Order: sequence, then C-alpha cells, then structure tokens
Amino acid sequence: MARDPRYNPLFEPIAIGPKTLRNRFFQVPQCTGAGSGKPGANAMHREVKAEGGWAALCTESCMIHPETDQPVADVSTLYDEADIINHRHMTDSVHKWGALAGVELCHAGGLSNALSSRAVSATAHQFVTPWIPAAHSYEAEDGDFLRLIDLYREAAKRAVQAGFDIVYVHGTHGALPVQMLSPYHNRRTDRWGGSFENRARFWVEVLHAIRSVVDGQCAVANRFSIDQLSGPEGVETGEDGLRFVEYITRLGLVDLWDVNISSLHEWGEDAAPSRFQKSNHQAPWTRDVKSIAKVPVVGVGRFTDPDEMLRVVRSGQYDIVGCARPSIADPWLPRKIDEGRTDDITECIGCNQCIARFEYGVPIGCNQCIARFEYGVPIVCTQNPTALEEYRRGWHPERFAARAQDELVLVVGGGPAGLEAARVLGKRGYRTHLIEATTQLGGHLRNVAGLPGLSEWMRVVSARETQLRQMTNVETMLGTGMAEAEDLLSYGADRIVLATGASWVGDGSGSMGHAAIPGVDAALSAFATPEQVFAGKELGKRVAVLDSDGYFMAVSLAERLADAGHDVTLITASDRVAPYTDFTLEAANLRRMLREKEIASVTGHWVEGAHVANDIQLRLFDVYRAGSRRTTTPKAGQAPRQPGTEASLLSCDSVVLCTGRRSNNDLYRALRSRAGEWEGAGLKDVYRTGDCLAPRYIADVVFDGHRIGREIDSADPHHALPFRREQPVWGAMTGA
Amino acid sequence: MARDPRYNPLFEPIAIGPKTLRNRFFQVPQCTGAGSGKPGANAMHREVKAEGGWAALCTESCMIHPETDQPVADVSTLYDEADIINHRHMTDSVHKWGALAGVELCHAGGLSNALSSRAVSATAHQFVTPWIPAAHSYEAEDGDFLRLIDLYREAAKRAVQAGFDIVYVHGTHGALPVQMLSPYHNRRTDRWGGSFENRARFWVEVLHAIRSVVDGQCAVANRFSIDQLSGPEGVETGEDGLRFVEYITRLGLVDLWDVNISSLHEWGEDAAPSRFQKSNHQAPWTRDVKSIAKVPVVGVGRFTDPDEMLRVVRSGQYDIVGCARPSIADPWLPRKIDEGRTDDITECIGCNQCIARFEYGVPIGCNQCIARFEYGVPIVCTQNPTALEEYRRGWHPERFAARAQDELVLVVGGGPAGLEAARVLGKRGYRTHLIEATTQLGGHLRNVAGLPGLSEWMRVVSARETQLRQMTNVETMLGTGMAEAEDLLSYGADRIVLATGASWVGDGSGSMGHAAIPGVDAALSAFATPEQVFAGKELGKRVAVLDSDGYFMAVSLAERLADAGHDVTLITASDRVAPYTDFTLEAANLRRMLREKEIASVTGHWVEGAHVANDIQLRLFDVYRAGSRRTTTPKAGQAPRQPGTEASLLSCDSVVLCTGRRSNNDLYRALRSRAGEWEGAGLKDVYRTGDCLAPRYIADVVFDGHRIGREIDSADPHHALPFRREQPVWGAMTGA
Repeated sequence: MARDPRYNPLFEPIAIGPKTLRNRFFQVPQCTGAGSGKPGANAMHREVKAEGGWAALCTESCMIHPETDQPVADVSTLYDEADIINHRHMTDSVHKWGALAGVELCHAGGLSNALSSRAVSATAHQFVTPWIPAAHSYEAEDGDFLRLIDLYREAAKRAVQAGFDIVYVHGTHGALPVQMLSPYHNRRTDRWGGSFENRARFWVEVLHAIRSVVDGQCAVANRFSIDQLSGPEGVETGEDGLRFVEYITRLGLVDLWDVNISSLHEWGEDAAPSRFQKSNHQAPWTRDVKSIAKVPVVGVGRFTDPDEMLRVVRSGQYDIVGCARPSIADPWLPRKIDEGRTDDITECIGCNQCIARFEYGVPIGCNQCIARFEYGVPIVCTQNPTALEEYRRGWHPERFAARAQDELVLVVGGGPAGLEAARVLGKRGYRTHLIEATTQLGGHLRNVAGLPGLSEWMRVVSARETQLRQMTNVETMLGTGMAEAEDLLSYGADRIVLATGASWVGDGSGSMGHAAIPGVDAALSAFATPEQVFAGKELGKRVAVLDSDGYFMAVSLAERLADAGHDVTLITASDRVAPYTDFTLEAANLRRMLREKEIASVTGHWVEGAHVANDIQLRLFDVYRAGSRRTTTPKAGQAPRQPGTEASLLSCDSVVLCTGRRSNNDLYRALRSRAGEWEGAGLKDVYRTGDCLAPRYIADVVFDGHRIGREIDSADPHHALPFRREQPVWGAMTGA
Repeated sequence: MARDPRYNPLFEPIAIGPKTLRNRFFQVPQCTGAGSGKPGANAMHREVKAEGGWAALCTESCMIHPETDQPVADVSTLYDEADIINHRHMTDSVHKWGALAGVELCHAGGLSNALSSRAVSATAHQFVTPWIPAAHSYEAEDGDFLRLIDLYREAAKRAVQAGFDIVYVHGTHGALPVQMLSPYHNRRTDRWGGSFENRARFWVEVLHAIRSVVDGQCAVANRFSIDQLSGPEGVETGEDGLRFVEYITRLGLVDLWDVNISSLHEWGEDAAPSRFQKSNHQAPWTRDVKSIAKVPVVGVGRFTDPDEMLRVVRSGQYDIVGCARPSIADPWLPRKIDEGRTDDITECIGCNQCIARFEYGVPIGCNQCIARFEYGVPIVCTQNPTALEEYRRGWHPERFAARAQDELVLVVGGGPAGLEAARVLGKRGYRTHLIEATTQLGGHLRNVAGLPGLSEWMRVVSARETQLRQMTNVETMLGTGMAEAEDLLSYGADRIVLATGASWVGDGSGSMGHAAIPGVDAALSAFATPEQVFAGKELGKRVAVLDSDGYFMAVSLAERLADAGHDVTLITASDRVAPYTDFTLEAANLRRMLREKEIASVTGHWVEGAHVANDIQLRLFDVYRAGSRRTTTPKAGQAPRQPGTEASLLSCDSVVLCTGRRSNNDLYRALRSRAGEWEGAGLKDVYRTGDCLAPRYIADVVFDGHRIGREIDSADPHHALPFRREQPVWGAMTGA
C-alpha cells in the first residue's frame, strides 16, 4: 500500500550539520546488552531498524576510555582499534540501508565505579553517589580537565574512523558534563566552577574539541537533560536547562539537540513505565527548547502512534521524533507508516522489561535500576521477541521461513504465548487453528491489564489479534470451553502446541517455601488467589496481601483494593515491596503510591501460619530473627525454626495470596498418558509453551511462543536450536 | 631455604583415581570473573598458582549447556569447540608446572534463570527460588532426566578433549543433583523420587555417565554439601549427607570427595567471612566423611596456617587441604612452605571482597550474594592486588620488574596503600623511605581491625610489615608527626608518593547529600565521627548511628556501642542495613546480630536536620514519602522537599556520623602550590595513592598502592598503563 499523504511531514529529509536525515524517525541512544562485546548482535539489531526505515541509529552510552568503564560486561566502548572494527561493522550495516549512525560519547566522571579497570575518575568535587555502587572520584585540577577534554577528542577521532555520522556528547543521566554544569556537584571557585559560564566551560570545551576533529564530517549532537528533577538528596532542578541551550546555541557548537529529563535518581521519569506515564510525557519540560535552539531538536516520549508523531512535528514541539523503546518493540515502525500499514505497528507497552535488570544495594532504593544490558545479557522486549535475536538466532522481526511441510497445527490457549505461536506459525504458512476456552483472547493478561495503570499492556493481545485476522491460514475459535485430551486427539492436528497458562496457588506456597502455609487455603472464604479476586470473590475490610512473587501482582492488587476502600497491608519477606519493579523503573512511584493510598507494608517478615476464627490471625516471623543462625548446631535433623522465637500476630478479615504460580498442565499430562494413541490419531507431537511450561514474565512467554513457531519443524522442537555465541577464543584475536 | 621437615606430610603425593596429586594443596573450584569469556586471564590466574606449588587447579562452576547459563557474562562454560580451546589453554598452562586441572561440571536446574539463552530447565518439581532472580523450571518427565544425564556425558567428553585431569559433579550450592537428592525439592513418586535411593538416582546416573566417558583418563570428583543448613524457608537439613557419601562409596563411583556445607541460602556459612568464622569452621559437619569415604577427601576452611593444615591432614580430618580464598590471597602458599619461607605467606583476611558483588531484588535478602565475578568483572583480593591482573597487566605476585633508575622514593603514610606502595617499590630495588606520622603502621585499618570480628583484617598490615623488614633498601620511620610540605621539599626524594588516607566528615554530608545536614557538627559534643569514637569521645546512653556509607563501619560501631551498654539505633536511607555486606556474605549474620543485641534500625529514612538541646532531636523523613513525586511540577526551581510533608522525630543523646569520607589532601595541595620549587629540590613528581586519592575499599587502595609501585617509572605514572582486553572482534573468530 502507499503512505497516507498526511504523514508526509514525517518523511521530509532534514539536515543536521553536514549530514541529512532521510526522514524524522530517529533511534536515540539505546542499550542492547550487546554493546561492544557482541559486535554481531549489536550491528544486526541496528541494521534491522535501518531496514525498517529509521533515519538514524545510535549506540548506547559509549565509554571513551577504560577509566570510565561501567560496572558491566557489555557496555559500549570506543577505546581502541578493536572497538573501531566492531563499531565499523555496525555503521556499515546501517549505511547499507541509507540510515545514519550515531555514537554517544560518554565519560561518567564520579559516577564511574570502573569495576573492570579499577581506575578513579576526576570530577568537579570528590563525591559518592547512592546510585552506583563503589563509584569514587577525586577533585580535578586544571590539568585533569585538559586531559579529560583530550579523551573526548581522541574518542571523536576513533568515531570518525569507525564511520559514525553523528557524534554525541552524553549529557544526561548524570554524565561528567552534567556533573560540571550542576551546582549540586560543582561548587568550585576556579575557572571551572562558580558562575554559569564557568560551570558550562567543561562542556563547551568538550564540544570544541570534538568539533575540531569531526567538523564537516559528522554532525555534533548534545544529549541533554533539560531538568534533572530534584530528588530528596538535593540534586539540582533544571533552572539552568534552557539557559544552557541558549548559551550553546549562541556559541553555535551543536548541530542537533536531543533533550530529555531526569537523571539516575529519577530515571523512571525519563524511560517512564506506562503504569505512570503515557506517551509524550516529557513535553512540559522540553517543548520550550525548540524556540531557543537554532538547529533541529529531537525528543523522546515513547511515541508509537503516527498521528501523535505527526502532531509533535507539525506543532513544532520537536523537528525529529526520537524513539528508543518503540524502536525495539517495532523495528519497522517508520516503514509501516510509509507503506500505509499503520495497523501493523506493534506498539511498545511501556513495561520496561527491556530495561529490567539489576542494580546494587541501593542506599535509597528508588529507581536504582540498571538495565538487563548492564547485566551483560541481551535486552528483551515483550512485544518483539526477535529483539537481540537478529544475529545469534537469525530471527528477523518481519521475515519468517516458510513452513517445512503442509501441516495443521493446533494451538490451545489464546494468552500471550498461544497468540504468538499462532502468529508465527501463520506467518510461516502453517494451517493454524487457535482455540481459546473463553470468549476473549488474552488469557490472564486480560486481568493484568485491568490493574491500575497497566491498560497499555493489552497491546500485546491487540497487536496479535490484528495480525491473526489478516492471515487466511489461521483460524481462531473462541469460547470452546476447556479442551479435553479426547477432543485434541480426535482433532486431526499434525501437531499440538499447548499454551494453557498458569494459575496462582491457593495454599501459600511459593518461593518462600514449597509446602503449604498451615491454615492457608483459598477454598475457604477467608483467602483468595488473584484469579479469585478478579472473579469477584468477596473480601473483608482489612485485607492482608502476601507477596512472595515480588513483581507487579501483589502491589497492584493492593492498590486496587485500597482504591475500593479496603484497609490493605502488604507482607513480604523481601526488604522492600515489589523488588522486581526496581528493575522496571516502577519502584519509586509505586512506593510513593503506597504512602499516598495509605497501604501499610510489613517487610522482612513471612507467614508461618494462619488461624481463622472471627477474623484471621496471621503469625509472622522476622526472617533474620535472633537465634536463627544455624552454624552453632552442627547436627542435622532440627526443625527449621527454633521453638520459642517470637512471632508477631497480624489480624485481618481477608488474605490475598500472591505467593506463587504453577503451570496448568493437566491437559498436557492427559495427552502424554495417551501417547500410544498419537500415531493412530495422526498426531506427531505435543509441545508446551509459555506459562504452561513454566510461569514467567510476559516477555519470556511471548519469546517462548515465538520460538516454538520458528522451530516447530526442527529436529527437536522441544529444545531451542543452538545459537551463535560471541566470545573471545584463545588463539584468535582477543583484543587490540 | 629448605622445607621444615615437619611439613613433609603436606608434600606426600596422593592418588585420586588414575591421577596423582603431587602434594596436598588443592585449589577447589573458585570463581575468577574471567570464566570462559576471558581465556587469557583465567589461564594465567591458575598458572601462577600452579607455579606456586598447588597440586590441582579447578575451574569455577562450569555450565554444561546453554540452557543452564548463569545470569552473568563471564561464567565458565563448556558448551562447544570454542570453550574446549579456551579451557585447553588453561589446562596446558597448569600442566606446564606439574599440576592437575579440574573442571566442575554444573547444571543449575531450577536455579538457572538462563537470562542469556532464555531456556527453561527441568528439575524434580517446578519451583521458584528467592535466591536467583527470574529462575524458572518445569517438572521433568522420565525422558528429560535421560537427556539431562546425556548433557553431563557430552560435557565430560569435552572435558577430556580440553585436557582436564579431574571431572567434578557440582553438587553443592543447590545445583541440579542436589535438587534431586533433596526432599525439599523432590517429592516425586516415580523412580526419580521418594526413597533415598530414588532421590539419589539422578546423581548416580550422572556419575555413571561421566565414568563411562572419562574412566581411566580422569579422576571423578563429587563436590557435595554435607549439610545444607535449613533456612527459614525450610530447605532441608543434611540428614541424608553422610548416608549419601556411604551410598556412593558403596557404588564406587567417585575418586575424590570435595565436601562443604550450606547452599545459596546460607552461602556465608561456606565462604564464611572472618567476622563470623575463623579457619576450619566446617569441621564439625565434614569431619565424619573421612571415616566413610574409601577415597581421598578434600575440604575447605579458609586454611592459611601451615600448622593447621598439617593438623588437618595428620589428624585424618581430610587427606587434602582445600583452598579457594587462601589461594587467591597467596598463590605461592605451598611453595613458600616448601621453601621454608612460611613467614612470607600472605594470609587471606576473610573480608570476602573477592566475592563482593551483587545480586538482585532479594526476597529475603539474606546471603543473596553473587560474586563480583558474576558481575562480569574480575574478582579482587585485598591481600593480593595481582589477582586477575596476571594476564591483562602482566603482574606476577612474586616477580617485579627492576627499577628503571636509581632513585629515592618517599612514601608518606603507613596505611594499606602506603605500605603496599613501599613494598612494591622495595621489591623493585628502589631506595624507599616510608614515613608514618604515628608510632604504628596500619593507618585507619588499625581502628577497623579493632571492630567486633574484624581482627584478621590486620593481616593486611602485618604481612607487609614482615616483607618491609626483610628489604634492606626500604627504611620505615614511625612517629614522624604530620609531614609538612616544607619537610618533603627538603627531603631529597626523587619522587613522593602520598598515602595520607581519608577522614570521615563531621557535617552529615555524604552519598545522601553534598551539603551539611543542618544542625549536625562533629565539633559539638553531641556528635562524633568514627575517628572520634575510636579516640574515645564520650557518648550518651542513647546513640543514633547515621549510615550513608552502607558497608561495615556503621553496623560495626553499632555493635561495639551496644556491647558497651548503649541503646543504639541505626538510621539508613537504604531499605536494609549495611547493604554492601550482602555482597560479602556478612549480611545475614549481621542482621541476626542486630536482633540479638537489640540494636534498633530505621531503614528507608534519612535525616533533614538535628536540634540539640537537653538531648538531640533528629528530624527523619521517609525517602518515598507521599507527595514527593516531581513530575507533576514541571517548572524548575522548587525546593527539593515539599513543605508540609511530615518528618518524624527521633530523640537520642549522641549521634555517630558514618555518612561519608573525604580524602586527606591538604599536604598534596600544599605541595602542588609549590610546584615551582620541585625542580630545584630535585623532586620529579608527586603522586597520590589510596584513600588520599579517593576513599575506597581496602582492596582497592591496596591495588592502587601496588599500581603506583609497578608503574612509577612509566611515561605517566598518574594514570594506569593500558591493559590487555579480551573481547570478540568482528572478523576474527567470535565463537564456535
């Protein structure tokens, strides 16, 4: 199809310095978990997007020298010849498709803990941060600044050699230039501090140094947090934000502004989860930049809707639409608009699983997240299971190998995994039947998406429904009721994919214990599983929510119940509520929500029993209670808990059990027990996918459904095909 | 010198299966942070120990298939041809010195989160653990077990190809064989569960499979946790421990038992920090194994004392002395005993910085540590700064390049960094003067080592004192008083290394804020820095300890003060006390100690002001207080905290300030301000090292002192020389 002409403004080329963007779709710096350690993965991830129409693809934060290495394995680096070779592969890959390549040069200054190089960085003043473990620094002398500027200059030379078109200064997320600009970090009285101009000096000199190297060859971009959003620890507000844009503009030092808000301490306000922010949420801070900057401005806002993108450009908010997460969720987003296939866009749901990964012993705990990439493993995307699988598994988001044989595949269960399996099988040309017991697709996700703030998660279902409808070889049957083994055996399918999901347990078992908690039973009126709550089971005034799951369910149900007027107490053995949400940048606002809605929480305790009478008495124990140390009692066979250690009592009227999930695999067992009948029924094999194999995050079950669709005709579809690894091999080149 | 003959029993060879250990010093499986991703670093780290006399060097936990990959970049793997090549390099390296090489084959089963491969593992039953984030599993069917056994068999074949002499089954720390043996994890009723023999079946079959491949070529070892130490969540005790040894012994399946205790949930009882356990602490559990096993037994216990090692072997506790941490702290430990140089041994201090690194959003928080290696960076060692620098920087623990020129180097300050700098300069032949203001070496560490449980940390000082005494070119001067710039300029030194340390601040500033906390001032009697406490400043009955440091100081002072009869309250903005100690495996017992000694703690709060009258009122605020979200107020310039949000008050008589440290660099500044006089004084340059550059962990300042000693004659001694990286390079071989 052809592009709707109203979107033409999104496809107008625009010059940035000596380079021209072919359109207005721009992938801003975005981590992959591949960095420089996996050059194949990194290049192919960007290349697929270049093919999908993006005008520019940028690296993540790219360290300019080992002294500022990140606490991780696979951060992007531009230190030496080896890095030049690896980045050159990325730039060549995107150039093939007419896109530009950008590199975000970064020195983290006092935020670098240099766990690998063990170096110490200079910055405005010596400081320690709660956001990065073991980060240390010293106060720079004049010569230190000159050396630091030189590190940028040398890195810019390597960037040119590597074939980059756009060279960024990383000036958000607290990087060194921000430390120098910030009156919180910089109270110097020499030429590098004090007045605004002095605080801006380092950044200005860095820009001069880069320009001296790249001028005429590359565009120079400034990534800048217009407002760092003061945190409780007193990081400064953005009063200097617009002033800085004005100042740099007057000096004519940049060809492109890439603007956002926040810093490490409120990162969730930048890469905001959909739970708390819808698209274009940064506009109130960043919309004024355009009126000051005399060069193009790009900004982000988790843009997935072409009409909103159009408004952003036409209204003059930004010249260029910046995307990170939306480009992961749909690498072909621009191309789909260009080809009039806007219905095919797979929109980012803002779950932040792409960020989800780890951190450290967070002093203040809020928003202290470092993404999965920083754990040294590839990022994942709930909507796009091919993300970071482009190279190692050869998966392309829009291309699928044709079926190996003409077969009928029956997919049982219309939740995320079943939908994705059916979608991929359909794309591959398999005759595919998807049956769903209920009258609606989505499975348990329908309940989840009804929780406060999570409505966008439903896009996982709607995007797939749309695609399934387009495929004539896929038949979707709703309201079939729970399938029986008998029905499936007589169905006539060549293969069956079971995607029957998982259920919350009703006995209190889970990660804190494999046995039931004495007295706990969701068959009683006093207790309820999440499914029972969704189904309307009546709850009393005072509700205790037990959480040994640690992600969104317990805290979301607590919010929903508080909104409905219940007095809610969350109980967790963890030292913080919903620890996994630290990784998804939801934690800080979730914990503020708990205070605002007066939801009590008991951390560091778990439940050893429940007594139901007029009300419910939960017996709680402190996980670090005195006397619990075991090494004074070398002989085995003792009770796990010392008798006599105190337990505290908590009274409530209802208990909601978010303790654990189990796969629904009765149907699988029934089919397996009749394996002898398969051949006669023409059934070649039965596979489990998604939660019915093991209950996991939605991103992981979508991946699982995708994989079985891709590999159903492999030699052993039950297990993934091997994938390409990227690792040093002794004797081959292992570094520069 | 010659070996003291009384140590001869430690040097008697011993057969294990078809192989012979040349002596009784055995490096059990131990992580490096290099794994298979850095083959050069890994091989050279083991090789230096082989040269140092160890009879066997083992890999860390080595994953047998991508489906069980660890959540980390650089875990050891034995998946494919690339891994064989990399491991072959390690085995060749240790064989050169007459040592054996061992590999610890591991499948983590339900403890694998496979963040890289995204696979799901089979195990006895589907379960979720609080110890590994996002680990998932499914219940194995009969065929799954056969496949899993086959994975071990195939890995054993690769182990033979890689040149290993000892093939381990990893059966501690909760690996798959333990999951099968454990009645907590395994409640199956088929042939893989139920009776003891059924629960042992998987492990037995794995051993059979491995033997079928390696028999006659390699020794087969079993690493086994004799008692898992029941945790609050009910992981079983070790009642089956000795029974299992007996059973496997009857079947004659192993050539070597490597025994320890605990599992992930009480890992601190295995790799125990010296704070809570001295050497040989596992004996009460493991000493009975020897009477049952008919093959050699190796066990660990942080053995550093040759006489204790001798007792262990002579008493028949173990046949072989197992070491992990002591072999890192002194790679040449066996050789030093052999050469009659036992005084030269650098003993492990049990600080666990070698382990220190992180984890995830810990449900129950205790002992949930994953080592620095698991962060994808090399381990570090407080005592041995060359650990994991052997390959990349070419540092050998016992060999030093001769000085580049005949110079006098003056080291100012006898703390850990100064001591190490002087030691390395001395080894290199420099005329070295070490001056210390006080009458004793050790600096701030002397205070630290006086804290409850930390006495062994003093070994950092004593080991260096011993070595300094042996070197005639090093002169140590104590009690010199605080040095002045004038003195140093007239000293006649060619170069000066300042190691003047750091001091705790007295105004409440630190990671939670760069400004003073209003009302806080250690010049007043109401407040005290740690140094003031050590110096005997008087404290009232009720003491509040403010911690924005997060490691040992605040919690240790709290313990000391509680022991002295004070009522102590710890205040931290973190959600848990002493978060860094989660990484050093000290956290669980520290938190139990807090309960036992009735030390109160206030987490998730920080101090916004103090009012001193009859007593002290601290105004505390909740770091997630309601209304603190900033994104509803896009305009800048607001006060960091909303007025009107409540603060709670805490009354006390004294406040101890563990909020932050600053480098002591007055002397450095004074010298720099007179840089014009240097040339005339014959002074070529002045360097800072250790805490006086940036306050850090002891391991890092020792490293820093070591580096300046190694590189003082480089082109720019202020900055580290480049080191060799090991990373994939596009176009070179990047995987099999």
